[in-house]
Amino acid sequence: MNSVKALFFDVFGTLIDWRNGVARESEKILAPKGYKLDWLAFADAWRGEYQPGMEEVRAGRIPFSRLDVLHRHNLDRILPRFDIKADEETLADLNLAWHRIDAWPDVPPAFARLKKKFWLAPVSNGNISLMVDLARKNNLPWDAILGAEVAGDYKPKPRVYLASCEAFSLKPAQCMMVAAHSYDLKAASELGLRTGHVARPNEAGPGKGEKSPKVPVDVAGNSLEEIADKLGA
Amino acid sequence: MNSVKALFFDVFGTLIDWRNGVARESEKILAPKGYKLDWLAFADAWRGEYQPGMEEVRAGRIPFSRLDVLHRHNLDRILPRFDIKADEETLADLNLAWHRIDAWPDVPPAFARLKKKFWLAPVSNGNISLMVDLARKNNLPWDAILGAEVAGDYKPKPRVYLASCEAFSLKPAQCMMVAAHSYDLKAASELGLRTGHVARPNEAGPGKGEKSPKVPVDVAGNSLEEIADKLGA
Repeated sequence: MNSVKALFFDVFGTLIDWRNGVARESEKILAPKGYKLDWLAFADAWRGEYQPGMEEVRAGRIPFSRLDVLHRHNLDRILPRFDIKADEETLADLNLAWHRIDAWPDVPPAFARLKKKFWLAPVSNGNISLMVDLARKNNLPWDAILGAEVAGDYKPKPRVYLASCEAFSLKPAQCMMVAAHSYDLKAASELGLRTGHVARPNEAGPGKGEKSPKVPVDVAGNSLEEIADKLGA
Repeated sequence: MNSVKALFFDVFGTLIDWRNGVARESEKILAPKGYKLDWLAFADAWRGEYQPGMEEVRAGRIPFSRLDVLHRHNLDRILPRFDIKADEETLADLNLAWHRIDAWPDVPPAFARLKKKFWLAPVSNGNISLMVDLARKNNLPWDAILGAEVAGDYKPKPRVYLASCEAFSLKPAQCMMVAAHSYDLKAASELGLRTGHVARPNEAGPGKGEKSPKVPVDVAGNSLEEIADKLGA
């Protein structure tokens, strides 16, 4: 564990509260146009298209497209279900809801500590400009933006983790993937990365999140501050 | 000019004083081993191999290799000229001289201002881990690390500039390349990027640097603070 030099973070769910954020931002844009929706259900439906959209890329059926493009495609798919008919400008703005989400409250104080001891990078499926907007909104002091767009594929494909280690000129054992999702940590672990699990038990709604890791991990905590404690940061 | 959202920076020469930095760091490592060199001449010789090394990649004669690898190759080429015979550990450490260079003194205060108005990224031929070390040493608050390693080619190849605009989801006209070297700005300008020239008249030794741009640019200054003034930051 003392050999860990860099921490890689999953972002959606692990660092930011996408469900409440997307619900709030969608309401902000659509309510003034007269729409009355169950905004949390809208966020859930949008997120529900997330894995199927990426799977097209992972399976090689479509070329790599950045997550902003997939989010827009996914939005277009759910609009009829909520009977939304908006102009192009509104939809483009709505798609940026994902850029305006708040971090979970434990994230900024933990990051201030972790930054002193480790190199920090998102290894997210989100694209670079999405990561920059979220970083600016939430003061996330990234050393670099790594992840899907740099690797040209989506997690949990091995290339994404390995390209991130290579970008930092580090071996997998010198890098720790931190996530709230066991599938992400399992993939990283199989490649030799260290792993940290942070519990986000209400990520996708009350009780709809991982209370604890479903796979063996190196560290686990109920907040990022607990992870920082365990890493001696 | 008001449409500029991101500033891209050349790093070696433009932001950091590679000549004095490499000379100092090389002396720090080799002098205790009994070497007495003209350290500035050693830095000049090492830098002298820079463009030929990259040209192999640009021309497609060798696959893309990160700059750390080329720097080491270039170091091995100049060692006989200075009659240096060092062990592998020393040479690996010496190669990291490029990671430990100081910024020109106008850079940190200008960056604090520019960060508030623009997205900032290096678009350097240096690799990602090299950029991170320099950023940590000099408090450069990058939003992302872009450039050669992300693009898989070296400036002034068009792909490096265009990949950087794409990474930020911006059009070339929304991005300004800032550099002390006219060849870099010429290449960026031809692709539609805005350009800023900062004079580093003594970059490669007294009088061996560009006092002013040799090509048309959008802004020019004798320091990065003057560039910040002209950009209203």
